[in-house]
Amino acid sequence: MVEVGLAEIRDAAERIKGIAHRTPVITSRTLDAAVGAEVFLKCENLQRVGAFKFRGAYNAVSRLPADQLARGIAAFSSGNHAQAVALAARELGSSAVIVMPQDTPPSKLDAVRGYGAEIVFYDRYTGDREALGRQLAADRGLALIPPYEHLDVIAGQGTAALELFEEVPAVDVLVVPVGGGGLIAGSATAAKGLRPQVRVVGVEPEAGDDTRRSLAAGERVTIPVPRTIADGQAASIPGEITFSINRRLVDEIVLVSDDELREALRFSFDRLKTVLEPSGASGLAALLAKRLDVPSGARVGVILSGGNVGWARFSELLGGVGASTS
Amino acid sequence: MVEVGLAEIRDAAERIKGIAHRTPVITSRTLDAAVGAEVFLKCENLQRVGAFKFRGAYNAVSRLPADQLARGIAAFSSGNHAQAVALAARELGSSAVIVMPQDTPPSKLDAVRGYGAEIVFYDRYTGDREALGRQLAADRGLALIPPYEHLDVIAGQGTAALELFEEVPAVDVLVVPVGGGGLIAGSATAAKGLRPQVRVVGVEPEAGDDTRRSLAAGERVTIPVPRTIADGQAASIPGEITFSINRRLVDEIVLVSDDELREALRFSFDRLKTVLEPSGASGLAALLAKRLDVPSGARVGVILSGGNVGWARFSELLGGVGASTS
Repeated sequence: MVEVGLAEIRDAAERIKGIAHRTPVITSRTLDAAVGAEVFLKCENLQRVGAFKFRGAYNAVSRLPADQLARGIAAFSSGNHAQAVALAARELGSSAVIVMPQDTPPSKLDAVRGYGAEIVFYDRYTGDREALGRQLAADRGLALIPPYEHLDVIAGQGTAALELFEEVPAVDVLVVPVGGGGLIAGSATAAKGLRPQVRVVGVEPEAGDDTRRSLAAGERVTIPVPRTIADGQAASIPGEITFSINRRLVDEIVLVSDDELREALRFSFDRLKTVLEPSGASGLAALLAKRLDVPSGARVGVILSGGNVGWARFSELLGGVGASTS
Repeated sequence: MVEVGLAEIRDAAERIKGIAHRTPVITSRTLDAAVGAEVFLKCENLQRVGAFKFRGAYNAVSRLPADQLARGIAAFSSGNHAQAVALAARELGSSAVIVMPQDTPPSKLDAVRGYGAEIVFYDRYTGDREALGRQLAADRGLALIPPYEHLDVIAGQGTAALELFEEVPAVDVLVVPVGGGGLIAGSATAAKGLRPQVRVVGVEPEAGDDTRRSLAAGERVTIPVPRTIADGQAASIPGEITFSINRRLVDEIVLVSDDELREALRFSFDRLKTVLEPSGASGLAALLAKRLDVPSGARVGVILSGGNVGWARFSELLGGVGASTS
């Protein structure tokens, strides 16, 4: 299997330069005191489309030949990858068709349409979005950009960790959310390429621990579709490519509960003043809930992977007016 | 009157280096498209204590002689200045006494106590906090650090604009919230010292337009205590020192309504993924509500001055669950 290395991630960084945001790294002494370490938070919630996904989508789309860009791109996603592909296509003068569930929230449909993409609906309960996406791509001659099973996507996602290490070279522990495994595959490749002794810790929701189980079993394990507020991490099986990278480079997977995710959303709002979606907060949640051992005084990098949660959903998650005591 | 110049702001920047955060400057293409300009947002909501106030407080406290630090510091404030002075005192090995209203929200009391300060209460409706603060300072030999009527405080506040200009040199318009006038006095001093042709625009809440009226009248005008959600800008008369600086350096004051502030809070949450308090959002509100003329394509710097609003209050301001359509 062709692999992704530091060189591919550096190439991706060149491609996205000036197009993706170089997101800020923030720190909080309150957080440092709570964790007993120096924590550096890479704010991918401030990335374009509100999540790291734009990095990989843009890198992958930008590598397509001109005739393919002229025909167009396809993707299936109800989440951040949809917006990422739609925007990447627009930025590169191409067009995108996104396969999305009929019950996608209007705000997400609007965002995708706002980037000029066409939406094709399917029924979440009866349709097979992957088959539909492949059929559509075949019929119309579109290039299908998967959310993580693609080396260019993985290389693009790795640029977030690359930037973090450029800013904070001596990271001891890198904490990364795990869904399909693309972000952590790219992050671990960048991190270990730059600093082999770094410990890379993935975080999954308790209900969606397919990667943890798979690493323990030494092979890809399928779990039931997870019920979790971390919708960006609701994978039921790791990707084939991502798993082959992660089994080699990821040191440990820890789990967080939905309540711990809510705590992290609240902490982030109240203390960090930054808006995260549940999946985007999972690394922070793991630290706050002491789900991983952090050596005292260690330098911990955390990828806050996304913030695509509207006010309505966020206030629903946190309980809204009066649910708070402060 | 002794003045503050660029040199004093540069000195302040040296003093706060490594102690105050160098806050990120964020950008948003959605915002740029809405405004028709390039907008650079200086995130003082990510400053220590959650607001720019720490810059001025730390600068002022750090300039006190050792024997004064040994005796201690006093301040009167129900807002961000209280926390800023408490933290500055702790950082410099001093102690602080803060005069606060009896009905201050528990979260703010906890924050001040968390920095190790003593709190002395007064009755907001019958007490005179300023007199009380002065009496207390005299009785105990404390140095009173005012929220804006102090050259070292003003110089410290100017460091936010200094950092913004270091990152984005060619700012054409600088938009700054106005309360007592300390932030804009320091910001305008830094900005015009570095780039004389920059236009400096202050933003006040509609109900609290004391500085706008004062600039129009050519002298300090007193207005009734403003009723506005922008509690950090509820001044009823400009400071004497701040007014003398601002009448010389501020080009224009524009006003925003409470509804426009709410719109900006919501926009910031949904699109910028950053948490602002109403006062902290006033510059953004003015831009979004087209309260100032911005030449097409201009480079606009905005100081997002604070984010000290807990989840409970924020959800109350925005209407919480179900109030949204997205």
